[in-house]
Amino acid sequence: MSERRARGRGRESARDARRAARAKSTSARSVPYITRNVPVYNPLSEEGLEIVENNTETILEETGIEFRDDREALALWKDAGADVDGQRVRFPRGLCRSLIQKSAPAEYVQHARNPERSVRIGGKYTVLAPAYGPPFIRSLDEGRRYATIQDFRNFVKLAYMTPSLHHSGGTLCEPVDLPVNKRHLDMVYSHIRFSDKPFMGSVTAPERAQDSVHMARIVFGEAFVDQNTVITSLINANSPMVWDATMLGALRVYAQNNQATVISPFILAGAMSPVTVLGTCSQLFAEALSGMAFAQLVRPGAPVVFGTFASSISMQSGAPTFGTPEPAMVLYVAAALARRLGVPFRSGGGLCASKIPDAQAAYESANTLQTAMLAGVNFMLHTAGWLEGGLVMGYEKFIMDADQAGMMQVFLSGIDTSENGQAMDAIREVGPGQHFLGCAHTQANFENAFYRSSVSDNNSFEQWESEGAKDTAQRANAIWKTMLDEYEAPAIDPAVDEALVEFVNKRKSEMPDASY
Amino acid sequence: MSERRARGRGRESARDARRAARAKSTSARSVPYITRNVPVYNPLSEEGLEIVENNTETILEETGIEFRDDREALALWKDAGADVDGQRVRFPRGLCRSLIQKSAPAEYVQHARNPERSVRIGGKYTVLAPAYGPPFIRSLDEGRRYATIQDFRNFVKLAYMTPSLHHSGGTLCEPVDLPVNKRHLDMVYSHIRFSDKPFMGSVTAPERAQDSVHMARIVFGEAFVDQNTVITSLINANSPMVWDATMLGALRVYAQNNQATVISPFILAGAMSPVTVLGTCSQLFAEALSGMAFAQLVRPGAPVVFGTFASSISMQSGAPTFGTPEPAMVLYVAAALARRLGVPFRSGGGLCASKIPDAQAAYESANTLQTAMLAGVNFMLHTAGWLEGGLVMGYEKFIMDADQAGMMQVFLSGIDTSENGQAMDAIREVGPGQHFLGCAHTQANFENAFYRSSVSDNNSFEQWESEGAKDTAQRANAIWKTMLDEYEAPAIDPAVDEALVEFVNKRKSEMPDASY
Repeated sequence: MSERRARGRGRESARDARRAARAKSTSARSVPYITRNVPVYNPLSEEGLEIVENNTETILEETGIEFRDDREALALWKDAGADVDGQRVRFPRGLCRSLIQKSAPAEYVQHARNPERSVRIGGKYTVLAPAYGPPFIRSLDEGRRYATIQDFRNFVKLAYMTPSLHHSGGTLCEPVDLPVNKRHLDMVYSHIRFSDKPFMGSVTAPERAQDSVHMARIVFGEAFVDQNTVITSLINANSPMVWDATMLGALRVYAQNNQATVISPFILAGAMSPVTVLGTCSQLFAEALSGMAFAQLVRPGAPVVFGTFASSISMQSGAPTFGTPEPAMVLYVAAALARRLGVPFRSGGGLCASKIPDAQAAYESANTLQTAMLAGVNFMLHTAGWLEGGLVMGYEKFIMDADQAGMMQVFLSGIDTSENGQAMDAIREVGPGQHFLGCAHTQANFENAFYRSSVSDNNSFEQWESEGAKDTAQRANAIWKTMLDEYEAPAIDPAVDEALVEFVNKRKSEMPDASY
Repeated sequence: MSERRARGRGRESARDARRAARAKSTSARSVPYITRNVPVYNPLSEEGLEIVENNTETILEETGIEFRDDREALALWKDAGADVDGQRVRFPRGLCRSLIQKSAPAEYVQHARNPERSVRIGGKYTVLAPAYGPPFIRSLDEGRRYATIQDFRNFVKLAYMTPSLHHSGGTLCEPVDLPVNKRHLDMVYSHIRFSDKPFMGSVTAPERAQDSVHMARIVFGEAFVDQNTVITSLINANSPMVWDATMLGALRVYAQNNQATVISPFILAGAMSPVTVLGTCSQLFAEALSGMAFAQLVRPGAPVVFGTFASSISMQSGAPTFGTPEPAMVLYVAAALARRLGVPFRSGGGLCASKIPDAQAAYESANTLQTAMLAGVNFMLHTAGWLEGGLVMGYEKFIMDADQAGMMQVFLSGIDTSENGQAMDAIREVGPGQHFLGCAHTQANFENAFYRSSVSDNNSFEQWESEGAKDTAQRANAIWKTMLDEYEAPAIDPAVDEALVEFVNKRKSEMPDASY
């Protein structure tokens, strides 16, 4: 029996069980975060990792890192025993590592306003969050256009309704219809009001970080915020080997307030780091170590996440490329470095260069999602929605990636080795040449047997054609529209909501609109 | 600097290096097969694997396997010490395993008529082959239609021209324009004539297997074929727990002639095996062990490959589903079982249920390709072209998957830990705030720095739009047409070609056309 013919047979006999099937849109169980029950994958040997760690210390010692336009930062480093030469800081071997290992937590809880949605970041846990930063959106209906606050709210709602996303994220898209200096207020408010999942704060200026913390205090209470983490924010290095004043300022605000920061070199290898995997890893680790150690100088114990965003570039055009093997290697190595250091790790995402949610987008996204899944990423920004190198948040792409996130959750939950998982009774009951559809074991495990995709069409060609021969994007288009139609806001204490609105309005009234 | 803004910066500075860039369609180096320099991934514990192995022996001992309509097979099993009850064969614990471990090679060479293209199957090697078995083809130009011998030849040519595919495969598509009882002659001839990569033989009847061996003898010489492996063929179990006479007959022909067989349960879990990962693994391993051991009874030392093809089904419709987490787990576990047994392993492929080469096709394919890559698959059928659950060979899909295969090759080659790979000179030369595009290390490593996709569009939105806003399938369409235009047949000894044609014509004249 050929592989083709065998398939027809299975399909046919499966019809027997159809009547018993109850419709269910997805099999992704709703959990606040993923607990990993499978090992991580690490392609680099112990010796290889030691080479990277050693080279990282050499970079920190010999080349050093620039802390630009921030006297306080330089003073902190001088006090800590680093060699400060102008804005260049050089670090005795092991200084950054020891500062981090002395006080940074290996994992932390980020509290959500709904306690059932609080997440654990680090260790064997994985938290998935939507894409971050796109100024454009794309949908089948409107094509590509600048994003607005309405789009932002839509993506907060979609993330809230998606069981496989555990976190509301941050700048889901840039609401470019709002003034640059005020839009953070509407973004943070939207996260709080339209979702009850954990969220990220503003980092585009220290005072905007402070506003984010202030709004969190309104929700959680001042004392609680000082002693607990309720915001995780993204601090990008200005690679190679530079921290700028904006990022350092925001980092300081969050660390001072015991809020978490993801210390993330953002690297297009070949342009912002060497063209090799190990060279890129050594550099980004040096940058991350210096940033995480700086957070510990600001407030020992403030949660930090070692983040990386590393893609390669096309050596022809300089354009960033995604889903290729070299960035996957960097991701795996960086994850191993994080584990050896003992801090949570952020990387990955449904990254792609494609302009539209087509096959290129999906291959590239799946390649990075799979890599991140097996690397043991603890916090995954950009899980859903990313298009066009991060310039575009895609409505349909969001739905597709969220489906992949659901699969990730099932895989990471591991393999059931219980008696039920072994299913020997089923094999004994059925025997050679029969089918398993009606057997007791199948009936008992029917509901949760296999992951059920909400987006894939697995029907016959004839049925698919009779239903309009839709592609994946067209099916995803119908899904997000239905979700937004069915959205219901989570409850919020009216007094809290009122205080938030009041704060937002007050802050807006205190300054003129600005486009920077 | 945000993740969005940092990207623009890299892109901009990359322009500096553009003039130096020489066009190159792909960075997949042409090697006859992949040598794996990274570890495999295995999600199941030692104890878990022992449970599966133990349950497998219980299935073989208690339930047994049916060897249908084949007295010779039953007699061989009786002689070997198995309990033969009608067509049901029950095996003393450990019998199958010990038969295999006594004589089956851990790896073998499949010789190609061009010695530079001979492949190693097993161990740390990976050999990638196109999809197998589809009766339909799909292209952007013609949509979906029945395949012909012309399509078959096209795919032989495309596989020949694709550096990331190491093997010509077998039934690339069913040439349904030819009589069923004669088409194998044209298929095997096409593999030999239009390619010089290794190929697969016919398995749809013992005499067709014999024809395949005969044609190989014409090419390689009778003595060489008896002592070396020049054909690898696919033998599917009729799961659950049945071997049918067709497959056993073909298996016997190949084994007798020292040719390799891939012993592959073809399973849609839930229909043809239990709905759990471990249940499916135990059953398919029992089936495979009985088939591989049978080959060793026929001719000790004949190469066998432990193959699995396991997907899940939609519990609503019974339709096969691909790229989901449960089949990935099965694949990883089966790969570990193969390593513990000590035989080569076949699984994976660019599997998908999608009717068209869209995002669903790509997500699903990438998920299985990544899994197979990290599981340590030695022989991967269905690497390129598969659509619609294997019913369709897609021209555009073939090009897309082949691009992924090239990436796989780069990843499996591992991480360069040499001084050049460490790139410390580059970091020292460039320093904080500068870019790496012009530095000596980048210039020296320019050509092979990053994988270069032949299909992906990484250009700016504006450029992509000005070039027609093409999706991936449209770009792939242009690629396969150009390849077929540029195809040049590999040289062949005219006497060999003449002898092959003569044999094909003689065999065709000996029997009337038949549709079975």
